[in-house]
Amino acid sequence: MDRIFYPKSIVVVGVSESPKNLGRNIVENLLRFGFQGELNLVGKDGSELHGKPIYRSIDDVPGVPDLAVLLIPAKAILSCLEDCGRKGIQRAVVESGGFSEYSDDAENLERDIRQVAAKYGLRFVGPNCISVMNLDNGLVLPFVLMEPEITRKGGVSLISQSGGVLVNSVNLFSCENLGFSKFVSIGNKLNLDENDFLEYLDGDENTRIIGMYLESISNGRRLVSLAQKIRKPVVVLKSNRFPASNEVAKFHTAALAQDDRVCNAAFKQAGIHRVDTLADMITYTKVFRMPLPQGPNLGVIGRSGGQNVISADAVTSRGFQMLPFSDATLESARKRSRAGVIRMTNPLDLGDIFDLDFYVDVLESVLRDSRMHGVLLQHGYGGPEERETTYKMIESVKELSFRYQKPVILTIITSREDWFELRNASDFPVFPEAGPALEALAAALRHYRRIEGMARDN
Amino acid sequence: MDRIFYPKSIVVVGVSESPKNLGRNIVENLLRFGFQGELNLVGKDGSELHGKPIYRSIDDVPGVPDLAVLLIPAKAILSCLEDCGRKGIQRAVVESGGFSEYSDDAENLERDIRQVAAKYGLRFVGPNCISVMNLDNGLVLPFVLMEPEITRKGGVSLISQSGGVLVNSVNLFSCENLGFSKFVSIGNKLNLDENDFLEYLDGDENTRIIGMYLESISNGRRLVSLAQKIRKPVVVLKSNRFPASNEVAKFHTAALAQDDRVCNAAFKQAGIHRVDTLADMITYTKVFRMPLPQGPNLGVIGRSGGQNVISADAVTSRGFQMLPFSDATLESARKRSRAGVIRMTNPLDLGDIFDLDFYVDVLESVLRDSRMHGVLLQHGYGGPEERETTYKMIESVKELSFRYQKPVILTIITSREDWFELRNASDFPVFPEAGPALEALAAALRHYRRIEGMARDN
Repeated sequence: MDRIFYPKSIVVVGVSESPKNLGRNIVENLLRFGFQGELNLVGKDGSELHGKPIYRSIDDVPGVPDLAVLLIPAKAILSCLEDCGRKGIQRAVVESGGFSEYSDDAENLERDIRQVAAKYGLRFVGPNCISVMNLDNGLVLPFVLMEPEITRKGGVSLISQSGGVLVNSVNLFSCENLGFSKFVSIGNKLNLDENDFLEYLDGDENTRIIGMYLESISNGRRLVSLAQKIRKPVVVLKSNRFPASNEVAKFHTAALAQDDRVCNAAFKQAGIHRVDTLADMITYTKVFRMPLPQGPNLGVIGRSGGQNVISADAVTSRGFQMLPFSDATLESARKRSRAGVIRMTNPLDLGDIFDLDFYVDVLESVLRDSRMHGVLLQHGYGGPEERETTYKMIESVKELSFRYQKPVILTIITSREDWFELRNASDFPVFPEAGPALEALAAALRHYRRIEGMARDN
Repeated sequence: MDRIFYPKSIVVVGVSESPKNLGRNIVENLLRFGFQGELNLVGKDGSELHGKPIYRSIDDVPGVPDLAVLLIPAKAILSCLEDCGRKGIQRAVVESGGFSEYSDDAENLERDIRQVAAKYGLRFVGPNCISVMNLDNGLVLPFVLMEPEITRKGGVSLISQSGGVLVNSVNLFSCENLGFSKFVSIGNKLNLDENDFLEYLDGDENTRIIGMYLESISNGRRLVSLAQKIRKPVVVLKSNRFPASNEVAKFHTAALAQDDRVCNAAFKQAGIHRVDTLADMITYTKVFRMPLPQGPNLGVIGRSGGQNVISADAVTSRGFQMLPFSDATLESARKRSRAGVIRMTNPLDLGDIFDLDFYVDVLESVLRDSRMHGVLLQHGYGGPEERETTYKMIESVKELSFRYQKPVILTIITSREDWFELRNASDFPVFPEAGPALEALAAALRHYRRIEGMARDN
C-alpha cells in the first residue's frame, strides 16, 4: 500500500497538451503540491507538457513506476492495465468513469479488469474516483485542480466513496483550520476497498483520526473485525439509507442498498462512530483532536446566562453531569472576582466579568479538580476590542487542556470579521455552539471506555 | 406598545460622565443608530454628556417622555418608577439586575414595584434585561455597545429572555446576512411578558418572522390562544428543560421549571415551531424567508453525486418525496447537455456540467412542473473561477423561487475566502448543507397546512 501513497515514481496515463485535457490537472496538482518523486506522462498524441515528454505508450516509459494513474476512456482501461501488468507495474489508480455506475453492460468489462489485475498481482483504486492525495509528500492525483492554501496538512485521513464529498470536505475542513494527511476516493471499489485502506491508515503514523464516507459496505464482517482492533477514532458517514436514495447511489458508485439497521448494529459493535452529515463529521474530528474525556462530569463556564441554560440542557441530554464545583475552585474564583458578582454554581455565569485571564484561572481550577472530566467554556464577543485577548485565551485553553489531559469544548460566537480569523489563531478547535460538540464528546467518552476495555482485556 | 418601540421622546436614567458608566453605552448606541427622537439624560451627579445636560432628577426633565430607560441600582428602582409615574410617564424599560434572579429577598421589592406600576398604569420591560432595539428608528437601548455594521435591518423580530442570547443572535444573524426589525430582551418579565410582545409583533408590519428565546412560559394558555391566531411563523427556542438546567435558569432570569412535555404539546397545539439551538433558529428563519412549500414533492439537483445520495436520505427522512422529473424537464435538460452525460433521475447529478446557466434552466423547468413543490439545489466550488457566476446564479435562483412561489433550498460549499461573501451577494438564503434546512422546510410545510386550515375555517 505504501506504493500507492508513497510511490518513488509514477506514470500518469491520459495526458495531452489540450487545455481541455483533465489529465493535465493531475500533473498541475503534483507540481502545485511539490511532489518530489519521478513523474512520467503517457498520452496517445505524444508531445510534451511542462518540459516533460508525453510518451505514446506505457512501454516507452523508462523503468518501472511504482504507481500508474489512469484517466482514459473506460473501454481503454483493460488493455492499459494489461500493459501496466506486463511492464511490472503493480499498483494503479483508475480515475475513469463509465463502468457499472453508468451502464449495466459494464459487468463483463469489470470482470475482465479484475482478471487482468489478478493475473499480474496488480492492485488498484477505483474506477470512477478522483483518487488519492497524500499531503505528506505532495502526491495529489485528483483530476480537479486542488488549492494548496485550502488543502492543509494535518492528522485526519479520509476514505470516501465519492469524489465530490471529498472536495467538499477539503473546503469545509479548511474553514475550520483542520488538516489532512491522506485522502482516498475509492469509487466503485472493484479491487481495493474501504477495508484495505482502513487497515493501512490504522498503521499510518501520520493519521490520527480516520473519516469515511460510504454508500455501501463491501465486506461488513471484515470491517467489524478490523475496526474492533483499531484504537484511532473511526468516524463514518454512511448514506444510501432508503430505497429512494438507492436509485441515485446505484448510478453514482454502483452502490447497492443495505439494511440501515444492520449497518447501525455493525458500527456499534465495531466501535465506529456514525454521523449523518459532513458537518457532524467535522465536529467529531475536532473533538477527537483533544484529550478524551475519562468520565461524564463537566464543568460549564459561560459569559451568557442564557447560553448557560441552553448548555445545561445540552449537557444533561447527552448524559453528562454538572457536579457542584469544589471548594478550591470556588475559593480561586472568589479571590479573583469582585465580591458577590458571580454565583458559584455549575454552570458558572461569568457575564459580568470582562477579564479573560480570569476565565482561564477558573478553567484551570476546574481542570485541576480530579472529579471533573472536562469543561465546556462558552465565550462570545462582537467588536475588535477583545480580539487579541480572545486569541491569547485560545492558546491558554489549549495548553491547559493538554497539560491536564482533559477536553475543553470551547465555543466562541463572534462577528463574521473574526469568524475564520479566530479559527486560525490556534490549531485548538473552536466550536460555534455546544450541542453538536457535546454529541461528539459523548462519542469520545464511549471511545475512551472502549479503548480502556481493550487495555484491560490485554 | 408603540410608545416602547416608537417613542417620540425618551429619558435615560443612570447616566454619568464616568467612563465606567454603563448608561453612557445606551446614549452611545442611540447616537450610533441615529435615533431621531428627543433624548433626555438623568443621573444623580448631573453634569453633561455629548453636549446634553444630565438632569439630577426625572422631575427636572422638560415635558413628559414617552419612555423611561432605567439603569440604576435595584434598590433605587422603586422610587424612580414612582417619580416616572408621578410625572405621567407610562412606559419604562428596567435594565437593572439584582432582583429575584439574584436574591430571594427581592420578593417584597418586586411586589412593591408591581404595585407602583399598577397605581400609575405604567407598563415596563424587565427588570434584569438588556432591553429593547428597534432598527426601524434607531431605538437601540442595550447597555452593551452594539455595532451598526453587524446589526442589520430586516424582517425578523426577536423576543428573548436572555440578553446574552440576543447579543449572540446579532452576531450569528449577521454572519448569514439576516436582518432584524425589533428585539426585546424581557428579563424577569415582572410586568410585560413574551405574550404582550408576541401580540404586538403580530400586528407590526415590519415583522415577518417572530423568534423567541424563553426559559419559562409566563402564561401558557394565553400563549397558545395568541399563537393559534398568528399567521406569521413563530419559532421558539425554549431552554430550561431539565432539573439541572433549572438551577442556573433560576439565577439567570428567575425562571421556574416547567414540564418539557407540556411545553412541547402546547407549542404543537399553537402551531409554534420549536428548535433546540440558536443555529436551528437561524436555519428556520432563513427557510421562512422563502415562499412556503405547498406539498411534499421536491426536485433534487446537485453537482456532487455523493452529496445527492446524502440529500436523498435527508429528503426522505423528513417526509419529502422525489417524484421522477416530468418529460418537459428531461427534454429541456437533454437539449442543453452534451448527449448522454447526465442521468435523468431525481436527484439529478450535474457533476460533469460546469455551466451554471444550465443549472438555472433545469431549476426553472422543475419549478414550472405543477406537481413539484420545491427544489433542493446543491452547489459547491473552490477556487475564484466560479465566484461571479455563482453570485449571479444566486440572484437567478431567488428570482425563480419568488416568481414560481416555491422554496428553493440552495446549499453552497466553498472556501472560507468566499464563505461570507457569497452570503452578501443576495438576501436570498444560502445554506451550508441540506439536512437542517430540510428539517426547517418540513416545519414550513406544516406551517403552510396550518395557514390553509385557518383560511378554510374562516
